[in-house]
Amino acid sequence: MIVHGETELNKKQQPGSVGIVQTKTFEYKKPFVLQSEAVLEKLVLAYETYGSLNSKKNNAILICHALSGDAHAAGFHEGEERPGWWDDMIGPGKAFDTDKYFVICSNVIGGCKGSTGPVSINPKTGKPYRLTFPVVTISDMVNAQKLLMDHLKISQILCVTGGSMGGMQALQWCISYPNMVKSCIPIASSHRHSPLQIAFDEVGRQSIMADPKWQNGNYPENDGPDAGLAVARMIGHITYMSDKSMEQKFGRSLKKEEYGYVFTQEFEVEGYLRYRGNSFIQRFDANSYLYITKAMDYFDLTRDQSLFQAFQHIKNISFLIIAFSSDWLYPSYQSKDIVSSLKMNGLDVTYCEITSDYGHDAFLIEFDEETILIKHFLEKVMRKTENTS
Amino acid sequence: MIVHGETELNKKQQPGSVGIVQTKTFEYKKPFVLQSEAVLEKLVLAYETYGSLNSKKNNAILICHALSGDAHAAGFHEGEERPGWWDDMIGPGKAFDTDKYFVICSNVIGGCKGSTGPVSINPKTGKPYRLTFPVVTISDMVNAQKLLMDHLKISQILCVTGGSMGGMQALQWCISYPNMVKSCIPIASSHRHSPLQIAFDEVGRQSIMADPKWQNGNYPENDGPDAGLAVARMIGHITYMSDKSMEQKFGRSLKKEEYGYVFTQEFEVEGYLRYRGNSFIQRFDANSYLYITKAMDYFDLTRDQSLFQAFQHIKNISFLIIAFSSDWLYPSYQSKDIVSSLKMNGLDVTYCEITSDYGHDAFLIEFDEETILIKHFLEKVMRKTENTS
Repeated sequence: MIVHGETELNKKQQPGSVGIVQTKTFEYKKPFVLQSEAVLEKLVLAYETYGSLNSKKNNAILICHALSGDAHAAGFHEGEERPGWWDDMIGPGKAFDTDKYFVICSNVIGGCKGSTGPVSINPKTGKPYRLTFPVVTISDMVNAQKLLMDHLKISQILCVTGGSMGGMQALQWCISYPNMVKSCIPIASSHRHSPLQIAFDEVGRQSIMADPKWQNGNYPENDGPDAGLAVARMIGHITYMSDKSMEQKFGRSLKKEEYGYVFTQEFEVEGYLRYRGNSFIQRFDANSYLYITKAMDYFDLTRDQSLFQAFQHIKNISFLIIAFSSDWLYPSYQSKDIVSSLKMNGLDVTYCEITSDYGHDAFLIEFDEETILIKHFLEKVMRKTENTS
Repeated sequence: MIVHGETELNKKQQPGSVGIVQTKTFEYKKPFVLQSEAVLEKLVLAYETYGSLNSKKNNAILICHALSGDAHAAGFHEGEERPGWWDDMIGPGKAFDTDKYFVICSNVIGGCKGSTGPVSINPKTGKPYRLTFPVVTISDMVNAQKLLMDHLKISQILCVTGGSMGGMQALQWCISYPNMVKSCIPIASSHRHSPLQIAFDEVGRQSIMADPKWQNGNYPENDGPDAGLAVARMIGHITYMSDKSMEQKFGRSLKKEEYGYVFTQEFEVEGYLRYRGNSFIQRFDANSYLYITKAMDYFDLTRDQSLFQAFQHIKNISFLIIAFSSDWLYPSYQSKDIVSSLKMNGLDVTYCEITSDYGHDAFLIEFDEETILIKHFLEKVMRKTENTS
């Protein structure tokens, strides 16, 4: 039997872990113009890095996070027991091998984990922006990340990747900065938010805004629309799973033996959802939830052109597109649409639909298959980069 | 060009309509024992009938409604412009042909459209039950309908049918009163609520209960948890459609030409959901929503036995099971499970999966195919009934 403290210590020190890490801050002090033409007087990005930039500066990998993620993708914060959100994928010997690559992850603008967002202080007023924060887009998130790359003196990105909204940012990187990027791995993602995806985001927002404690976004720091945010998260969680994974995980199991004929949670699945809803409110800002979901809903590479045309400026990026068989929120046909349009542009594309019961969440679970696919792909891209540089 | 008033008048008088109808009330004045062992001192059921019971009393068809339905399945209420919820299916010459059959539909107990439910007055206190109303089950709904059948002097039901929760009641009828029923048509239904179905119901309930206006169910008649109920209904609506039907109906269409970078509804799909949410609160009671979704969640014919065993007492019922290809809330595999277990019991079963993009809502939309299937099925059952009686 292993003592709990020992396990954690071992885990942090074990070969595959990047160990103890710190979130850093990058401050851009000039005005930052958004897609909406609104201007942020200054910009702060929270970010973490793992591994080292090599002398050729050609081994940088940018990880983009999803809706509820943050800059803490790998390793452990001092005194914390839980590693970063993609720790199984980032570290020595892992898919994003920090012995080989310099891995960067930053919190998106609009977020609430250190980057400029609705909880940040508006330098003009000295008060938090709240709903006066301008609406941001995926393109804005990418432009902010570009400033961070400049700050880190990285002019070439070996690979930009992410799942879900992270995949949207990865695709947007290829559109916005086609000459900076060598490869791209969008996972369980889409090139345009579908009405179903918008609809689920919208009920989440409605749930938050229907909570009287939301107060048009002007809630006190410790007394926000917790009930509304918890329901929004519960809705999200259902869409991240699959019919089958819920059947396997919960079935119709009850917390007690018999039906209680009451409205308190009786089924395991009810208890799980409430638990996830309630733990989310401890760590996420309700206004941020509005801004980030809105950014996803605006995402549409075909707004002014066909997807084929959207990819026409891309000349030299290799793609690995990954989808999951049971993901009904970002179904695999959406990934296949991306594959077709990239192929029609004569680009190097590998597509893989991983068979999984875990639904959309699979990108945070199916590490073995993701690791094999990504390792081989990155090795190939790195060889190509070395040969052509 | 047709003047609006004329159209409506014509519609009400046209051959396929049952015309002007009234909701009737049946009162059962003895104690009614529920599955939970709780007792209702008396029971009221609101119901409607269309067509006439024949002299042999062998042409009665019982229609069971879904979550938000009521007794008003066909025809028009005096002064109203909208017909009953399944008007396209019930009337002279229609699927449930009122020239041939005596069609009955009653509001379920726990409902808010005339049958005993949380808005009813508790005879013991003289005040509305609200949350003191006992939790009811699908089995309780069926037992209450049985009393209505007794009242109408109907001892043989030619067919019991319904979509979604209506299909659960139809199946329960076959289990509870196997010798009374000649045929059963469960549409887009299930023999046990899956964790996915429970999960969506639970977030709807959570949304209602999170609304401070809910007040533990003790809200005034005209000042209930509207915001919470609207969000619950919005969630429901998403699950009743399909990815494809939403794409076809809304796509990413905007209400205005350009992105507004605001949180008011911009996408057509957002406007539609809010409209449906807001119109629902005009016609539905929030507590009733809790009770009826709970009844569905409890539904599980395999709670104490296998599905094969659950159907073992059925000797002489013919089944037509209908599912829809794009229904992801009640996927067709759930209907096929019912088909297998019925077949294994040597019963007469016809199964049809209708190809449709309309998702779960298809049972309220795909009238042409439903009509053909049901007409033939009922004619066959009626012939068999005539021959054996």
